[in-house]
Amino acid sequence: MKCPCSRGRKVHAMAESAIVLLSGGLDSTTTLAVAKDRGFTPYALSFSYGQRHSVELAAARRVAERQGVERHVVADIDLRVFGGSALTDAGVDVPKGRGEAEMGEGIPATYVPARNTIFLSFALAYAEVVGAADIFTGVTAVDYSGYPDCRPEYLGAFEAMANLATRSAVEGKRRITLHSPLLDLSKAEIIRTGTALGVDYALTSSCYDPDDSGRACGHCDTCLLRLKGFTEAGFPDPITYQGAPA
Amino acid sequence: MKCPCSRGRKVHAMAESAIVLLSGGLDSTTTLAVAKDRGFTPYALSFSYGQRHSVELAAARRVAERQGVERHVVADIDLRVFGGSALTDAGVDVPKGRGEAEMGEGIPATYVPARNTIFLSFALAYAEVVGAADIFTGVTAVDYSGYPDCRPEYLGAFEAMANLATRSAVEGKRRITLHSPLLDLSKAEIIRTGTALGVDYALTSSCYDPDDSGRACGHCDTCLLRLKGFTEAGFPDPITYQGAPA
Repeated sequence: MKCPCSRGRKVHAMAESAIVLLSGGLDSTTTLAVAKDRGFTPYALSFSYGQRHSVELAAARRVAERQGVERHVVADIDLRVFGGSALTDAGVDVPKGRGEAEMGEGIPATYVPARNTIFLSFALAYAEVVGAADIFTGVTAVDYSGYPDCRPEYLGAFEAMANLATRSAVEGKRRITLHSPLLDLSKAEIIRTGTALGVDYALTSSCYDPDDSGRACGHCDTCLLRLKGFTEAGFPDPITYQGAPA
Repeated sequence: MKCPCSRGRKVHAMAESAIVLLSGGLDSTTTLAVAKDRGFTPYALSFSYGQRHSVELAAARRVAERQGVERHVVADIDLRVFGGSALTDAGVDVPKGRGEAEMGEGIPATYVPARNTIFLSFALAYAEVVGAADIFTGVTAVDYSGYPDCRPEYLGAFEAMANLATRSAVEGKRRITLHSPLLDLSKAEIIRTGTALGVDYALTSSCYDPDDSGRACGHCDTCLLRLKGFTEAGFPDPITYQGAPA
């Protein structure tokens, strides 16, 4: 039987551990389901990084519990210390009501400098501690139109660096593999993939600017992409939006 | 006039900003002096990462103030969340009284998984926010006998990744350069270099296991290497060791 993962021809005899970056959004939740479906024992990693939308951390905890991860670590890092992004800096507005053409133009205000590099570096530390050689990230094609640290060439360079950075690399053990199973999927395809794997998207949170009770705004870039994805996938979005009856 | 930095033939017309990783130890303090000597405006970056020897953060603050850095950021990150190192895990002993042959064998217990990758990732974020293209690290040849993430091939791979990770890379601005000016220097050569640049080593702290008043133990790997370095350089070590009269 052929294993669906990218590295081997056979199904793994024993479940290998994998680190899964889990924000609690639609993409990372789907990625976690894919990692499990590929036979890995998942170790989830989330970040408390001074993001405005800390509602997503609650979503990450719900998702990790529902999907039965081996361990869920929330690493506390303060990216606000440098400033410079709408996601962490109260002085920068989250853009709303933009069309897809505008979203694709340049680097968005919601870009956090070197965020993926920092997140993946922590994933690398976690991998080394639990003896995992596989790291899953929910980066998508939609992201890499705007975020430099979501492009395939960046991910390849990170993987190359990771294989020189770690004890296992020095000691000649298994290579670190960075998996980005959503990279070539549209939002609708991601939703179809997750739905087929039994993902409950009601647990997820994608909005950059939710209200105090965690309801999505429906107008920021991620809300618009999410809503369009559900429409195209032919499923209703199960989360509650602001203005909708509670 | 030729600039001593590795990138240009002429002295920079205007001082360029550079990020300097500053632990408050002997090596990073010397590196800061080298960065200034090369004409850069230094932005220092230290980490509060759950290290046992938080005494070094006080040293970093003293050094940053004395050397007149443009800004000193202390980023708060909790590497204890993963465990696995004598430097952050109270359950692992710091090795003492080892000879240099033993220190050179394998990866030391004081190795923190992916620490340099995490530190350099934060430096990259800081660089992007302040518009710097240069990052200085005090990695030395002595380090890379034991720590995988101190080897030249690792540093080169990080630089390659960094140049795909950032807004400036995407927008075609200047390349990120990772400077490791101490890489080929012995401890004695580092001390001679810093002394020639006016570094006050009395402000620094190197010990992995200082007492409550900050005095060095004199027996851990870094203390032994430091003491040997001063002896070889022909200078007295100006810091106070445990057991010495206060």
